[in-house]
Amino acid sequence: MMESRYCTELAQLERPNMDSLRGSIGYALRRAQLSAFEDLIHALEEVDLRPAYFTVLYVISENPGLNQSEISTALGIQRTNFVTMVDNLESQGLIVRQPAKRDRRSHALHLTIKGTAVFNRARDLHDEHEARLMEKLGSNGREQLLPLLWRIADE
Amino acid sequence: MMESRYCTELAQLERPNMDSLRGSIGYALRRAQLSAFEDLIHALEEVDLRPAYFTVLYVISENPGLNQSEISTALGIQRTNFVTMVDNLESQGLIVRQPAKRDRRSHALHLTIKGTAVFNRARDLHDEHEARLMEKLGSNGREQLLPLLWRIADE
Repeated sequence: MMESRYCTELAQLERPNMDSLRGSIGYALRRAQLSAFEDLIHALEEVDLRPAYFTVLYVISENPGLNQSEISTALGIQRTNFVTMVDNLESQGLIVRQPAKRDRRSHALHLTIKGTAVFNRARDLHDEHEARLMEKLGSNGREQLLPLLWRIADE
Repeated sequence: MMESRYCTELAQLERPNMDSLRGSIGYALRRAQLSAFEDLIHALEEVDLRPAYFTVLYVISENPGLNQSEISTALGIQRTNFVTMVDNLESQGLIVRQPAKRDRRSHALHLTIKGTAVFNRARDLHDEHEARLMEKLGSNGREQLLPLLWRIADE
């Protein structure tokens, strides 16, 4: 009874004119990013990883042995936040810090065997998420979208 | 002395291979959105508004008298978060709540004179921010980008 009354009220909502706001690049970016992020957060719940942590594992997997500064700079993550993330990944047994060969004062990052297994599953879940985005974008959508996004993101 | 040593160390950083990650739509969206958001946050500091608050004023300005549910639904903001935002905007004297004509249990939102002045200045700052994004995107970039972003954002 309560629920059907609520639905009636929702149906009576007026839809605001959002035309100007929908023409804002910044607002459209925000809404698209929130929508995509929500999907990825949900997809990665199975492996208990947040998207930012998945990204860090991704870069370590493709670049084993790089040091912390190199990775945080490439990802645009502030050094102090990145150190916390590395601490968490290490305490979960997903990565190890080893003395870097080139500079023994810094730490090179590697995936553990467990980290590799978790990352491989996460990458599959991420690929499924990307496939959902590509389906929304339609043919050639990804090829059109990516260079435009990097024009905004790159300095 | 310290500074020049630091610069030398930075120069020696290896740049990770980011090719796969840069091909991820979700990651590109995140980086572009963070970059654009940072610019807008900085631009709106002059009027002491966060981007989300600017967006709420924008919708109220274009749709005076709509009620809270209609606006929060259109903006995709959770009801409880939205109520906090409306409280803050009201205590800053930028908006007023009035009983809605159609349903006196709900509240219609209007900009105050002060709110209109702040919003007009904020809109100019936002337009300058959009112009910076358009310059990065190049000719026709905005026209290509917007429909792709809304394909992802719209349900």
